[in-house]
Amino acid sequence: MICDMAEHTESSKGMPDVSELSIGILGGTGDQGRGLARRFALAGHTVLIGSRSAQRAQEAAEGIGVRGAENAAVAAEADIVIVAVPWEGHKALLESLRDQLDGKIVVDCVNPLGFDKQGSYALPVEEGSAAQQAAAVLTGSRVVAAFHHVSAVLLLDPEVDEIDLDILVLGDDREATDVVQALASRISGARGVYAGRLRNAHQVEALTANLISINRRYKAHAGLRVTDV
Amino acid sequence: MICDMAEHTESSKGMPDVSELSIGILGGTGDQGRGLARRFALAGHTVLIGSRSAQRAQEAAEGIGVRGAENAAVAAEADIVIVAVPWEGHKALLESLRDQLDGKIVVDCVNPLGFDKQGSYALPVEEGSAAQQAAAVLTGSRVVAAFHHVSAVLLLDPEVDEIDLDILVLGDDREATDVVQALASRISGARGVYAGRLRNAHQVEALTANLISINRRYKAHAGLRVTDV
Repeated sequence: MICDMAEHTESSKGMPDVSELSIGILGGTGDQGRGLARRFALAGHTVLIGSRSAQRAQEAAEGIGVRGAENAAVAAEADIVIVAVPWEGHKALLESLRDQLDGKIVVDCVNPLGFDKQGSYALPVEEGSAAQQAAAVLTGSRVVAAFHHVSAVLLLDPEVDEIDLDILVLGDDREATDVVQALASRISGARGVYAGRLRNAHQVEALTANLISINRRYKAHAGLRVTDV
Repeated sequence: MICDMAEHTESSKGMPDVSELSIGILGGTGDQGRGLARRFALAGHTVLIGSRSAQRAQEAAEGIGVRGAENAAVAAEADIVIVAVPWEGHKALLESLRDQLDGKIVVDCVNPLGFDKQGSYALPVEEGSAAQQAAAVLTGSRVVAAFHHVSAVLLLDPEVDEIDLDILVLGDDREATDVVQALASRISGARGVYAGRLRNAHQVEALTANLISINRRYKAHAGLRVTDV
């Protein structure tokens, strides 16, 4: 396994060196946010998780050995900011953080999904996708979409050393997607794969509903690998 | 590789035996249709490819050792019918074949995509997806969505023995999706994986645009594998 993983490090792929970047996670008290925080901390990054309440952020952060603060402080301090808030509060939060996020790479991993007794389904998004909504709000930021399909359960499981999936990275700014691909590959076992422009983010977000269906049917924590890449 | 493949045969998965089913492919003169026809013929199926013109169907069929006929004759004769027509003619063709397709499993693999100088993107579909449009038109058929992401280039390449991807199968009729999963697994190397209800077909169709972006960036014929299943 180790020699296999070596192929996925950013250096061997000609990816930028992102090892010194600090990572902020807005909405970092949810399972997805905490799971990503945990994996990036394991990879040696300084990680800050954000919440509307500094106290809740600090409580959530303690359990995984990172720091917690209010979303605005996290957005201002971190080199790269991941947006992992619930879809309901997505637009309002980003509107409130435009200044702090100006000039930064902002990675949106939000999946706008609805749930009913038949499972989950994609919600319509006026801007096309959560990522495009982020780009429309954060006109001074470099918005990238990624980390939609990682299983929070696996990210948080101390028994799971390797996360067996490719992380699809979308964006219109090549330098920014390269950075996020390199960042994705810092999660042990995972690999960042460029998967198109932001206008094609909707289906990647919505595909999370299909992964939820797969997980139900097969009692799995399904991920995707891209073949021939 | 062979022992690995053995895990994916329908028998070992408790899948229905579909080896005797004849397969019709509407719009079978396109690359996708001919590619699927070729692989199913290699797996021992009787395959008929359809076109608006019987002569064109016969010409396309000859090259891959199957039979060709008019779409209507193919729809009437085959046990299972795959719809591989261009999106532009999708609805009209299905409306014209309602009687022939009544009661049958109809597998839609159409990707409603637009193309411009920045690549491909998902087109809006009034019914939600091509598969849902098929279900809306073919109220007497059992509509399943599958085979969206297979590379026509690889399907047609005589040097390629194994198609390295999972075929996502969607539908609301469990027996029908089981049959199509078994059918997908008849393509050497491939595996049929249930991936949700028809209402979640849009993103699977649209994801073809992302695979096209991946193919451009990495000079690949990318497919997807589902991990942990």
